[in-house]
Amino acid sequence: MSQGRLDIVGLGPGPREWMTLETVSLIEAATDLVGYQRYLDRLPIVAGQKRHASDNRVEIERARQALELAFVGGRVAVVSGGDPGVFAMAAAVFEAIETGDPRWRSLEVATHPGVSAMLAAAARLGAPLGHDFVALSLSDNLKPWSAIERRLKAAAEGDFVMALYNPASAARPRPIHDAFALLRALKPAETIVAFARAVGRPDERIELTSLGAADPSRADMSTLVVVGSSQTRRIERAQGGFWVYTPRGYGEAR
Amino acid sequence: MSQGRLDIVGLGPGPREWMTLETVSLIEAATDLVGYQRYLDRLPIVAGQKRHASDNRVEIERARQALELAFVGGRVAVVSGGDPGVFAMAAAVFEAIETGDPRWRSLEVATHPGVSAMLAAAARLGAPLGHDFVALSLSDNLKPWSAIERRLKAAAEGDFVMALYNPASAARPRPIHDAFALLRALKPAETIVAFARAVGRPDERIELTSLGAADPSRADMSTLVVVGSSQTRRIERAQGGFWVYTPRGYGEAR
Repeated sequence: MSQGRLDIVGLGPGPREWMTLETVSLIEAATDLVGYQRYLDRLPIVAGQKRHASDNRVEIERARQALELAFVGGRVAVVSGGDPGVFAMAAAVFEAIETGDPRWRSLEVATHPGVSAMLAAAARLGAPLGHDFVALSLSDNLKPWSAIERRLKAAAEGDFVMALYNPASAARPRPIHDAFALLRALKPAETIVAFARAVGRPDERIELTSLGAADPSRADMSTLVVVGSSQTRRIERAQGGFWVYTPRGYGEAR
Repeated sequence: MSQGRLDIVGLGPGPREWMTLETVSLIEAATDLVGYQRYLDRLPIVAGQKRHASDNRVEIERARQALELAFVGGRVAVVSGGDPGVFAMAAAVFEAIETGDPRWRSLEVATHPGVSAMLAAAARLGAPLGHDFVALSLSDNLKPWSAIERRLKAAAEGDFVMALYNPASAARPRPIHDAFALLRALKPAETIVAFARAVGRPDERIELTSLGAADPSRADMSTLVVVGSSQTRRIERAQGGFWVYTPRGYGEAR
């Protein structure tokens, strides 16, 4: 049997211009695209290419389907938003390989980097991730809330900047409320907080506030929440608005 | 005076194909490129475009020069490797704005996201950053070692995957040795460790080992070191070699 290959790619969080040249080529060359309907809808139709769209809830089934298609000779691209390696499809594909048909381990499978939501949000703000930071998902779909609490505490203890993914969803609005309540006990009220919603999309909205003043209900499932370290700063722009950045130095050696 | 603009872009860690479409366009349209010589050398010559190359040590002077060029009407691109917002030029530009000529606050300055070294390294490995992680620089050039220790301890306490930047340089070979010594007291010996050197470049080298067995002298200034969480796993490939990934779930809710 002529074996195919599986490329795991990410479209970036918004416009086509945030895709890499490599990702554009891989998607054009694929015989089969597998992904969440909303991501596939962003891509131009290529003649002869098959699309296997799914709901966003079934990552592991989608991964298995992609592996099957590659195993029978397809040149398959699994399509994520953002970067495929950060809270996205790449981990699901490798989980499917580890727990699935042993023959899948002979397939050519490669992950290809893209622009993650946190890097796009940071770019819009200035450079808040310019120094040490954590990326942390607040979704308790697949991990207990106690693990999230432990990580929020550790992130505060380390005075890391925080990029918080999945702060809230329609079904689960609580995580960002609970996270702010916890962080307010550990970090100063004047800590910089930013809500970066739908960055790069038509409904983009950036809000800058502080931990003390932040209204957690401003975050939804399309929002990346940035919580500053003790060093994160804002600069007032002459035309109004702000840039946010975290300096390259820290503490006494700065 | 007709004012120019300043775009802060990143080339990605290696090949041209990891640049975004946006970054390709911005670099082509720029009147002036400002950056470290080694990054500018990667770019094709554009007729009429000026190049202002510098040594890698003088980020803040480079940022000031770029702001001056934009202020007198240039369309300036400040060029980093990787993503410009992660341990790179964007923070230096905003530091220069905050501490420099107040008129610079009226300039159009924008950061544009790119592929960071950690995302490229993670892609080569599989999906080690598929779940909560920290990005931490081990350079004690601009922060005291005590701050790095505090952050390593917090990262271990939170059981985060770690992407360690600047593990060692010719002048300062110690950081990764000291970091591993600290982490060995806090994390199991079988914790997955990967050295991802020069990812995407001709001299790329990926090594997979464990915290107990890792030789820190394998890391140099071109290496990104990944230290797994308790959940990070390896999958043996049929043709030899491994994929590394961190599952989407954690603990009891997995």
